[in-house]
Amino acid sequence: MNRQAGSKTKGRVWVVENGKMRSRFDHLTTEEPLEIRLAPFQKTVAVTMRTPGADFELAAGFLYAEGVVNRREDIQRISYCVDESVDGEQRYNIVNVELRHGLIPDLQPLERHFYTSSACGVCGKASLGALRLRGCSAIVTDLTVTPEIIYSLPDRLRAAQGIFTATGGLHAAATFDTQGQLLNLHEDVGRHNALDKLIGSAFLSDELPLNNHIVLVSGRSSFEILQKSAIAGIPIVCSVSAPSSLAVSVAKEFGITLIGFLRGERFNVYTGSERIETIN
Amino acid sequence: MNRQAGSKTKGRVWVVENGKMRSRFDHLTTEEPLEIRLAPFQKTVAVTMRTPGADFELAAGFLYAEGVVNRREDIQRISYCVDESVDGEQRYNIVNVELRHGLIPDLQPLERHFYTSSACGVCGKASLGALRLRGCSAIVTDLTVTPEIIYSLPDRLRAAQGIFTATGGLHAAATFDTQGQLLNLHEDVGRHNALDKLIGSAFLSDELPLNNHIVLVSGRSSFEILQKSAIAGIPIVCSVSAPSSLAVSVAKEFGITLIGFLRGERFNVYTGSERIETIN
Repeated sequence: MNRQAGSKTKGRVWVVENGKMRSRFDHLTTEEPLEIRLAPFQKTVAVTMRTPGADFELAAGFLYAEGVVNRREDIQRISYCVDESVDGEQRYNIVNVELRHGLIPDLQPLERHFYTSSACGVCGKASLGALRLRGCSAIVTDLTVTPEIIYSLPDRLRAAQGIFTATGGLHAAATFDTQGQLLNLHEDVGRHNALDKLIGSAFLSDELPLNNHIVLVSGRSSFEILQKSAIAGIPIVCSVSAPSSLAVSVAKEFGITLIGFLRGERFNVYTGSERIETIN
Repeated sequence: MNRQAGSKTKGRVWVVENGKMRSRFDHLTTEEPLEIRLAPFQKTVAVTMRTPGADFELAAGFLYAEGVVNRREDIQRISYCVDESVDGEQRYNIVNVELRHGLIPDLQPLERHFYTSSACGVCGKASLGALRLRGCSAIVTDLTVTPEIIYSLPDRLRAAQGIFTATGGLHAAATFDTQGQLLNLHEDVGRHNALDKLIGSAFLSDELPLNNHIVLVSGRSSFEILQKSAIAGIPIVCSVSAPSSLAVSVAKEFGITLIGFLRGERFNVYTGSERIETIN
């Protein structure tokens, strides 16, 4: 069973205001390492700093983004490695992922942890090439959405975010349909983890690719955010902040509509503007 | 020579406002991979997505944080790996770091990329233990600072940030003295990179530890931000946003004053409040 508790930690804080200091209790976003192990190989493939909760989704989403697993059937079972000798708080920081019998994944990309290394040739272009090698192709869909629906997404996300209000320390990633209905939401101290949880959740319920979905992420859109979105087949990616140059390149290459600076009744479209229904 | 250009990329953007779409040109924060190689071993130790600029500082700061180098003399030379056969834009994405003759660094932590893996024992506590093993000890200093100086830091940072205003896509890390004077500032699409550049810059000019410095980072304070700060001996770390639980644990363990939610004439102190001069 996935552990849902523990995403907040209570702690004492000193508030300084008008030159005076007073003490009170406050909630902090919990950050703890999660070690992801591939059970049949007794191999640790990653340790990520994350906010506890939806750990199985995080593990599945991470392994999917890295190309270790590709279909729901590739994962037989996910469980916590609960060692009796370890005390309560530490017992839920390792998950064992049992792969389908006979599946021998290619762990090299994970071990190298980089995109290419041909003599002096690492570059954004090579990073895109690595994504194509991973089996990514341009997303083809007739899906469109109105500006009004896009405007409404940040408020809908905030309304659904329980923890954020309390600690102010969590990133979020959410899926919506083209009518703006929130379908799923995950939070984490790390932006990438929130998206891994979201995509991992779809992976585990066999809902990939997310061809009819809009994703909204808090924070900036980086290469990695777009990389994970491209792999999951998401046609529209929105953020309330700025994208990077390489994020725009990935979006362009893989046919993703990339929206940034979504604030109030205004946003920027960096690629794929044909999916936005405007008056003109 | 460190390349300073290329931190912004011009691109076309479609602005949607009041249901209408218009096209204009805009600046994007450049994001490109940087491959860090240890020259004598012909070994790639990391590829990080970064904003070009201060690449040598980034490489030095990264290697210092990871414990590959410890003193200025450990690095003999840093240079770009410029291959004539590679075209202009891609020629500055690899740096070669030549270590001091005879220095055989321990690269195991880099390869494993995690903090500990004793049977079922990965946890926040173990992460702190790994930092102690790395040679970190509690920061001892009489340094204090007034709330007024702390209040003033975000404005001083913004005033000094050239690129941020143009693209809205960059994180920053800056050092100040206790009178609030800005000493150094680095920017990057990644929070950790901005801090690596800042600390790497101090490493290369042999100014470590930063015992008399205040550091301000944009964004949240995570474990990694505090880990790097502890290693560099920084006594006061401020952020305009929230810290995580593990960031507070690291700050407490290593005697760092950790300030969060620094906005206007108000901030929270999570640890080390004795360094803040208040009226009471």
